[in-house]
Amino acid sequence: MTDVRVEPSEMQHLVETLGAIGEQPGGGIVRPVYSDAWVAAREQLATWMREAGLIVRGDALGNLFGRISGETDRTVLTGSHFDTVKLGGRYDGALGVLSALAALRALRRDGFKPRTRLEMVALCEEEGSRFHANFWGTRGILGLISPGELAELRDDEGTTIGEAMRRVGLPPEDYRQAVREDVDAFVELHIEQGRILYDEGLPLGVVRTITGLYRFLATVEGRTDHAGTTPMDLRRDAFQAAAEMALEMTRVVAAEARPAVVTTGYWDVQPGAWNIVPGLVRFGVDLRHPDEAVKQRLGAAVREAGEAIAARRGVTVRYEMVGDVPPNDMHPDIRSAIASAADDLGVRFVEMVSGAGHDSQVMATRVPTGMLFVPSVDGRSHSAAEFTSAADAARGATVLSAALQRLAQ
Amino acid sequence: MTDVRVEPSEMQHLVETLGAIGEQPGGGIVRPVYSDAWVAAREQLATWMREAGLIVRGDALGNLFGRISGETDRTVLTGSHFDTVKLGGRYDGALGVLSALAALRALRRDGFKPRTRLEMVALCEEEGSRFHANFWGTRGILGLISPGELAELRDDEGTTIGEAMRRVGLPPEDYRQAVREDVDAFVELHIEQGRILYDEGLPLGVVRTITGLYRFLATVEGRTDHAGTTPMDLRRDAFQAAAEMALEMTRVVAAEARPAVVTTGYWDVQPGAWNIVPGLVRFGVDLRHPDEAVKQRLGAAVREAGEAIAARRGVTVRYEMVGDVPPNDMHPDIRSAIASAADDLGVRFVEMVSGAGHDSQVMATRVPTGMLFVPSVDGRSHSAAEFTSAADAARGATVLSAALQRLAQ
Repeated sequence: MTDVRVEPSEMQHLVETLGAIGEQPGGGIVRPVYSDAWVAAREQLATWMREAGLIVRGDALGNLFGRISGETDRTVLTGSHFDTVKLGGRYDGALGVLSALAALRALRRDGFKPRTRLEMVALCEEEGSRFHANFWGTRGILGLISPGELAELRDDEGTTIGEAMRRVGLPPEDYRQAVREDVDAFVELHIEQGRILYDEGLPLGVVRTITGLYRFLATVEGRTDHAGTTPMDLRRDAFQAAAEMALEMTRVVAAEARPAVVTTGYWDVQPGAWNIVPGLVRFGVDLRHPDEAVKQRLGAAVREAGEAIAARRGVTVRYEMVGDVPPNDMHPDIRSAIASAADDLGVRFVEMVSGAGHDSQVMATRVPTGMLFVPSVDGRSHSAAEFTSAADAARGATVLSAALQRLAQ
Repeated sequence: MTDVRVEPSEMQHLVETLGAIGEQPGGGIVRPVYSDAWVAAREQLATWMREAGLIVRGDALGNLFGRISGETDRTVLTGSHFDTVKLGGRYDGALGVLSALAALRALRRDGFKPRTRLEMVALCEEEGSRFHANFWGTRGILGLISPGELAELRDDEGTTIGEAMRRVGLPPEDYRQAVREDVDAFVELHIEQGRILYDEGLPLGVVRTITGLYRFLATVEGRTDHAGTTPMDLRRDAFQAAAEMALEMTRVVAAEARPAVVTTGYWDVQPGAWNIVPGLVRFGVDLRHPDEAVKQRLGAAVREAGEAIAARRGVTVRYEMVGDVPPNDMHPDIRSAIASAADDLGVRFVEMVSGAGHDSQVMATRVPTGMLFVPSVDGRSHSAAEFTSAADAARGATVLSAALQRLAQ
């Protein structure tokens, strides 16, 4: 067991250098998978890995690995993704890759000899911001990509993901070569993307569960009428009904208290004219809870609430499920490795739920997986305003390095 | 006083013939001002007027007049507009033009000799569906067009209304020649565009007042947050606040009972993503009441309701007035001419408020004006589904002819 430390200045340099790749003149990073900026970022990461003395290898999908050899052919893997949302920040995904790099670099410098292989990964795609390919890198490693996706997933220009791969030198027909069977553990450091750690002044979160998602489209049909000539008592206003549904669904979920959340962020009001009573409204309901039974109970309750309002108001409502993802528990062994590393280093932490989706939720379906969260200032995420202090980033990478030692021994 | 009658078959022929001009293959009429369809409709109307023995004349804006000469140089005018909204119906505007034609044709056939001139008008533009030129024809007659509008009002292709006039042979620089000083009365027959007459089984409405309009844009600002990572109790959700405002504003106005109406039909929710708590919402509030004092009181009440909700929810709201149009009372002499005509003919009617805007509201600011409403089946309007039975249309035109006799004698 070596007592390595990652310095804030080191994290700051890494974050600033990688964050400049794909950065736009007005701020915000555009670095979708297989773009020029993505290629440049990957080359920068490979250079850093080689300089750190890691054994560098890319796979058939563009995932990039850097290894410290071990005594066995089993692997402890750590990392995150390096693609961004459109106009994203420097930390989402990237900080997990750079923390892995800093941790392995420090361990290698310190002469740490793992029993299993210790490997970092820069995952090629997680955000789904160019293709609807979410978790592409992780799915490739786990063998969860279906052959049809190569020709079916298209970006806004109509380019398929297979064509995009070929343009950056990755023959898409080789995609199955990315499958790994040797991974025994996965650890991902990520920014919280919320405000709990920041508000409570805590430097670290250990994720217990990645929350479950229950997402449906509600379509409310009333009757389009003239705004001037239709008395209030004769209307069947689809928007007024939908607004009451959205408020009541929110009341039901908020009454459950943390960490239950529901969001009604997508709205399509037809015909959308000032002087026409809306006849048709579609809105999105995004409900999350880390307990599957509670999630299903809340899902049923909000649907019933909507139906009761529809019946009372003389409109119809129908629901279309667009996502029902169970929660994914993090593995107890990985959680305890992170927690004991933090304890030994005197870093205060809290066990918490991840309300956002991550590569780890996919990885956890096949591999023992754990996550560390570091604070996001003001909870900002998916924006150029993302910020985590260099001190918090270095503290996270130091805990990561200590946890990896435990797992790889 | 002659006892003329307009027959249903006559109205049906007129409605079907005019309604075919600009009709689209899938249904619905597209006949904006100065379009090819508009030119064709105007030629058809001129032909019918000439065949009826009227003295036909077009003015500098494209308004089309047909006259029965009188003993004086004063004029009683009747008509409506013949432009349509995009995919509009056969009755809105058109029925007022065709009723005027049928009425004058019947009076002329019957040898009626008015004391004042008796004139019908097919007004060139009311809907604002191509240019935001609403009431263009009526405003031209009253001298209410400002010179700048000719070059400022543009359609979606960027054509100015002046250029569009020139293309149909109307030199725009002559627009002031359309001003009329000789009109002593204006009568407009129109479909109700609502469901009151239809629901109550009444064939006729005599308009007492054209309702006042109070229209503002509400902008609600909260904070954009991640839908998964932000606990409900830490959110400042602009949509949830706006939805509560829309419901409360509606409750306040509905509590006033008929004919107070308010509509929240326009919504812009930003960023509009399923997984982001909305940070900014704009919505339109369209409030109408025929009593100016009540309208202003309700306007203030709904604004206060919104502000109270904003304060309680920790968001901000600001309002931008986009319309504050006073109600326009119809003239007692015209109303009583219509009412006594209906009584003599044994046609049941109700006095009512027009919740929609009409050429008459502009005309009423300078000329004694009155309106007759005929039923709209199911209250349909601004759609291909608009329908008024030939019997109701003929009954309306018959009452119109009797009212015109009273006014022109």
